[in-house]
Amino acid sequence: MKDDFYERVTPEDLKYDDRGLIPAIVQDYETKRVLTLAYMNAESLRRTLEIGQTVFWSRSRKEFWHKGETSGNYQYVKAIIADCDRDALTVLVTKDGPACHHGTDSCFSYPLFGDMPEEFRKIDQETEKKNNE
Amino acid sequence: MKDDFYERVTPEDLKYDDRGLIPAIVQDYETKRVLTLAYMNAESLRRTLEIGQTVFWSRSRKEFWHKGETSGNYQYVKAIIADCDRDALTVLVTKDGPACHHGTDSCFSYPLFGDMPEEFRKIDQETEKKNNE
Repeated sequence: MKDDFYERVTPEDLKYDDRGLIPAIVQDYETKRVLTLAYMNAESLRRTLEIGQTVFWSRSRKEFWHKGETSGNYQYVKAIIADCDRDALTVLVTKDGPACHHGTDSCFSYPLFGDMPEEFRKIDQETEKKNNE
Repeated sequence: MKDDFYERVTPEDLKYDDRGLIPAIVQDYETKRVLTLAYMNAESLRRTLEIGQTVFWSRSRKEFWHKGETSGNYQYVKAIIADCDRDALTVLVTKDGPACHHGTDSCFSYPLFGDMPEEFRKIDQETEKKNNE
């Protein structure tokens, strides 16, 4: 740990919303692509830290969601960075495969304005090639 | 526009929560760093698309928040990418200066687990040098 430069925070410093949740932006540690916006409660963060893989709280299914449990595409946590208000997290991960259950590298694959950045487009074209093999 | 590869969405396709909001992950187009998690309603998205700069909805102040209006650090929108559920956005921007009102490049500057990725650490060290000049 290089503790010199940054002010570090602990799980106790975090602010959860009125449902007990904190948004967790999952970002690819290697490509820096945003993969998914998920949510954690205090217990799912505890489990994430314990096993070193992402464990979210599924708002729709109202249950813990250990990413990869059904797909095999686990996410390995490299770093968790809180924001200035302590009410949002960026979770940097490496991963075994696509982050999205639709088979795409990232859940963020639907342009509304402008074009997909070229680096990410290349990943998507490679992923599609693999899926078609 | 390279419309060939991706399924594009329109503002009408988006799903807002019970407060009429959608989370907007602001990401630096150049460094790919996650800068801020903010929120938009339909009108702030409309204004964002109209002026090409980020306009959020401030949940605490309950008003539109044209990023940069007070600090001068405007964010210029290069692309907006929706997720598979159409209930979250990644907004890719270039920017005039620090994204955080604390003067840091990103609001996500407080490690909870692991270390800040080296690329981002370099940016923060340069920003601090500038701030101290």
